[in-house]
Amino acid sequence: MILLEKALEIIREATNEIILETEIVEVDKSNGRVLAEDIVSDMDFPSFDKSAMDGYAIKRSDIEKLLEVIEFIPAGKKPEKNISKGQCSKIMTGAMLPEGADMVVKIEDTELIGDKVKIKNLKSKGNILFKGENLKEGDIVLNKACKINPVHTGILASTGVNNPTVFKKPILSVISTGSELVSPEEKPFPPQIRNSNSTQIQSLAYEYGAEVSFMTQVEDDENKILQSVKAALLKSDIVVLTGGASFGDLDFSQKVFESLNAKIKFT
Amino acid sequence: MILLEKALEIIREATNEIILETEIVEVDKSNGRVLAEDIVSDMDFPSFDKSAMDGYAIKRSDIEKLLEVIEFIPAGKKPEKNISKGQCSKIMTGAMLPEGADMVVKIEDTELIGDKVKIKNLKSKGNILFKGENLKEGDIVLNKACKINPVHTGILASTGVNNPTVFKKPILSVISTGSELVSPEEKPFPPQIRNSNSTQIQSLAYEYGAEVSFMTQVEDDENKILQSVKAALLKSDIVVLTGGASFGDLDFSQKVFESLNAKIKFT
Repeated sequence: MILLEKALEIIREATNEIILETEIVEVDKSNGRVLAEDIVSDMDFPSFDKSAMDGYAIKRSDIEKLLEVIEFIPAGKKPEKNISKGQCSKIMTGAMLPEGADMVVKIEDTELIGDKVKIKNLKSKGNILFKGENLKEGDIVLNKACKINPVHTGILASTGVNNPTVFKKPILSVISTGSELVSPEEKPFPPQIRNSNSTQIQSLAYEYGAEVSFMTQVEDDENKILQSVKAALLKSDIVVLTGGASFGDLDFSQKVFESLNAKIKFT
Repeated sequence: MILLEKALEIIREATNEIILETEIVEVDKSNGRVLAEDIVSDMDFPSFDKSAMDGYAIKRSDIEKLLEVIEFIPAGKKPEKNISKGQCSKIMTGAMLPEGADMVVKIEDTELIGDKVKIKNLKSKGNILFKGENLKEGDIVLNKACKINPVHTGILASTGVNNPTVFKKPILSVISTGSELVSPEEKPFPPQIRNSNSTQIQSLAYEYGAEVSFMTQVEDDENKILQSVKAALLKSDIVVLTGGASFGDLDFSQKVFESLNAKIKFT
């Protein structure tokens, strides 16, 4: 017996050199796949100075003045007017900061007096997200070999990567050995049992991002197991055998590996 | 703002009465689905007295005798001979216990003297798994509403449930609001930004077992948002809006819900 962590380490070492082929997938189907490329941002984030609040874009030096409102700037609309002394523009969260403004006072810190704006809180923060503050064009946002999760799909979409290159899924075969096995569809008559391992391994393979190409069930017969393993090796990256791994008279798995000159890394 | 746990509790309460339709799936595609039925075992586990070890099936009262080997019993083969006094059968792990035997001595605790078996360790355990020891026919093995994981697929297969009845996946729509949004395929020109939320929500929906039937992007226009929500409600169980949820001049989401007489459970 061997500790799981140790086993994984041995497997990782032994498979370090194996390079899977790559393929291109759609970003909305990329969850769970493994990136085969570094993802680089194609722009600054934010890509323009923007307001972090609903409020008024002003000149900080005007904070004590009564200000004239010259424009309404929703998100997505380019400001048309520059802010000059004594002026402000009403601005929504995410909207582009107008030229001439160097702070946004949030709506709660202001008061309308007639049609003029008065700032009630003179210690207001700036409330601006500056161009490139979060990320610069050319920065790596996701590294090669990253396993893509839903947050990553959002990052891919926001950097315009709609078709990331990912590694192809490893192909796995499952060979269940044991003369006592019947398929799950059948009712086993003692001393038979249903082969449930295959189904479980198949589900695990899917969950961990592998494809299953080949599932078979073989009786305890050294030559039949050998032929199955040979067939599986031709069409898969990973072959999983269940059963026959002990040292009983009919435990042939180890013998089969030996006859294939396989290196047994752990038992 | 509200704590995630509290929000989930409110959602759980509000959706308690909703019954999704059910459908039948293949067990090897059932991972991540939610059972719509209790799963009952169609047999005892084990379904026969079996050996837990590779060894010899004997009568305990014979443990000090030299024993004659009368049969070899591999897993999957029905024993043909009863064990009488002074006899034993070689038996493999998982194989059916022959009549007359009441214990299995593991191979390591025995010695061959000529063609007779001698038990070296007189304190050997029984090494028998008795019929029904793990589970009785008719026992519930998985409960309704259980979210199926790979281990469960193995349990389903071993109880002969190849087509479990599961709840249909809830259908989710995603409506992104914001005049600043362009689709991820496009390069945004300031003050635009890419709509990456939809992609992330779609991935999350898939990951948590929902289908996504409808994704759309709407500018900040109360009527257009209302029409989108109405369209989405017709074809989905869950409608997710992103954007427009604050109290700015163009934050219409809440107004849209009010005009639909929706009950707002939290903000």
